[in-house]
Amino acid sequence: MRDVAVIGVGMTKWGELWEKSLRTIFVETALLALDDSGVDKIDSMYVGSMSSGLFVGQEHIASLLADYLGQAPVPAARVESACASGGLALRMGFMDVASGMSDVVLVGGVEKMTDVSGHEATYALGTAADQEYEGFHGVTFPGLYALIARAHMEKYGTTREQLAMVAVKNHYNGSKNPLAQFPFEITVDSVLNSMMVADPLRVLDCSPITDGAAAVVLCTVEMARKMKKPVIKIIGSGHATDTIALSSRKDVTWLEATFQAGKKAYSMANKKPKDIDVLEVHDCFTIAEICVIEALGIVEKGKGGQAVEKGITSLKGKIPVNTSGGLKAKGHPVGATGVAQVVEIVKQLKGEAGERQVKNARIGMTQNMGGSGGSTLVHIFERE
Amino acid sequence: MRDVAVIGVGMTKWGELWEKSLRTIFVETALLALDDSGVDKIDSMYVGSMSSGLFVGQEHIASLLADYLGQAPVPAARVESACASGGLALRMGFMDVASGMSDVVLVGGVEKMTDVSGHEATYALGTAADQEYEGFHGVTFPGLYALIARAHMEKYGTTREQLAMVAVKNHYNGSKNPLAQFPFEITVDSVLNSMMVADPLRVLDCSPITDGAAAVVLCTVEMARKMKKPVIKIIGSGHATDTIALSSRKDVTWLEATFQAGKKAYSMANKKPKDIDVLEVHDCFTIAEICVIEALGIVEKGKGGQAVEKGITSLKGKIPVNTSGGLKAKGHPVGATGVAQVVEIVKQLKGEAGERQVKNARIGMTQNMGGSGGSTLVHIFERE
Repeated sequence: MRDVAVIGVGMTKWGELWEKSLRTIFVETALLALDDSGVDKIDSMYVGSMSSGLFVGQEHIASLLADYLGQAPVPAARVESACASGGLALRMGFMDVASGMSDVVLVGGVEKMTDVSGHEATYALGTAADQEYEGFHGVTFPGLYALIARAHMEKYGTTREQLAMVAVKNHYNGSKNPLAQFPFEITVDSVLNSMMVADPLRVLDCSPITDGAAAVVLCTVEMARKMKKPVIKIIGSGHATDTIALSSRKDVTWLEATFQAGKKAYSMANKKPKDIDVLEVHDCFTIAEICVIEALGIVEKGKGGQAVEKGITSLKGKIPVNTSGGLKAKGHPVGATGVAQVVEIVKQLKGEAGERQVKNARIGMTQNMGGSGGSTLVHIFERE
Repeated sequence: MRDVAVIGVGMTKWGELWEKSLRTIFVETALLALDDSGVDKIDSMYVGSMSSGLFVGQEHIASLLADYLGQAPVPAARVESACASGGLALRMGFMDVASGMSDVVLVGGVEKMTDVSGHEATYALGTAADQEYEGFHGVTFPGLYALIARAHMEKYGTTREQLAMVAVKNHYNGSKNPLAQFPFEITVDSVLNSMMVADPLRVLDCSPITDGAAAVVLCTVEMARKMKKPVIKIIGSGHATDTIALSSRKDVTWLEATFQAGKKAYSMANKKPKDIDVLEVHDCFTIAEICVIEALGIVEKGKGGQAVEKGITSLKGKIPVNTSGGLKAKGHPVGATGVAQVVEIVKQLKGEAGERQVKNARIGMTQNMGGSGGSTLVHIFERE
């Protein structure tokens, strides 16, 4: 296998982009990444998108986007693993370059979620759960994560305030990210007094509905060196699945797919949790971030809530988590999220993260998750 | 890159499977492939599905199917390129083994299309076209292929009867395939007198709506040899895209993505069109088969209709095309089609195709296409 580097990243402002279509959002973003990389010819491309069929009535989007990007006839593949579609696209691009099939690969993620009503968006997102055993009974994602939150509080004494602190931390980081959908701070009080969605989760515990895209360009490390580019290597890639239905798990507070994907990524990278300098994780709900940092071994099992309260994961903490603002403040265009995490980590490792820069960050990690944890992608990056 | 072999194939009876769900159809089929391969542990899996979101309200199906197959926590990825999703899944599995990431990979395709009304199915299939420039104006696939057919007839003198002969040939082959949805013969007269769909295409020019799945197991050639399995090598993989909208093409009778994907596959395999012994192509409409064999260089440009009339592509012809019955008679569960093509070619190369066996077949090819040709996957296989 050949060594693979990220040589360009691109992201545009996320939000409710009613004046733009899916193809516009993607092409603008992909052009930024190509521009950043300094290449204009790619060998293939991968697009992560969860449900362009239900959100905008368009499948076959990899071909569509290759066409609109002016890159046809290059091979273009759409990949999907619910909200982990972006991370999956990265893994496919990594494999493509590592295998020797392609030298330069564009990896993008995109979702246009606001062309449908809130009800329709909730239905579309719900298709990431087990439709026959969960969706059929009316359970949607806020409900599933509320069950996880309640169990975590019962089992480990995690407090309602600790959940809120995840959102407060991520909004603080997001306030320093001009591309974030909600670039402003919030307080614990405002979370605790926000509208109830699914007890104990309130609206400020939930990531929003977002339109947006993100893109990165991959090539061999050898080529990146020749181009005199800063070399950000992908040193670990882990991908794992778990039961899709929450009811089939032994312990709903434990994200087995995240644990397994993390294990593979750490082993491939020959790194340990303590080696990670900066980390982007899938905080679709505040409780998710707490469970994820536990499953990745960043903190002990059951100690995720306390870690946030102690500031361990804050911007100036021991291991800053979600410096971009996370899904909570940056936004969550589902298929784009996994790629946007890479954009943030690459910026951090290159020292280009502005006001939210983590000092001397050399090793970074991304964790991107589908459904209630039925699939997870973990990647580890190192600045050469 | 490591050499890759197909060591097992599986397919169940296709049709309107109202008593089975998507997950049941897939799992039954995958178990057949695993059984045929003699392995029970896989390292990863890929699932091709065009629109499980619109057809059955379920995304995230790779995780779902890994779970129901008892294979979680293995990495499981769904890939989509409209009706070429199955061929794309094969390419991803090939790359996974070739790169050294995985040793044993399950590649499947599945679509459950009859849980929605005919109107809804037509809408779902239409999402493979350009929704803003084609779908918006009410154009659906029979209409797009009717435009191609009309242009081909004008430009090359292809006759209405020649189109019918494609369907007649494929139904003859399909009558020898017990897993086909429509395993019976038809006549040129019955095609010409069948219901008009989009002039000049009649209902017997069109592939049907189908529920079904297909699966194959890949591993390294080295491992296949050690297992004393017949070694069916994947010696070429080509993937290309074209403009998604028909209106953007210079010549609507020419399938550029098929030409480009074929060129890459031939070059990688170091083979020429004349080396191919047996060929499965994407006959979603009769005209498609004619254009495809031209773009693959099997016959001269414009001579596809004549080739069918002369029997060149029939079961006893010089180069048998669609021995399985093709999409026309075997059925077309869109995401499964590209994988089912591989099932047929592997059976042919192993001499297990029963009444439809092509004598001494050693080199086979599959061509799987999305939309009106916006994406194409071509693979070449060789029996060692």
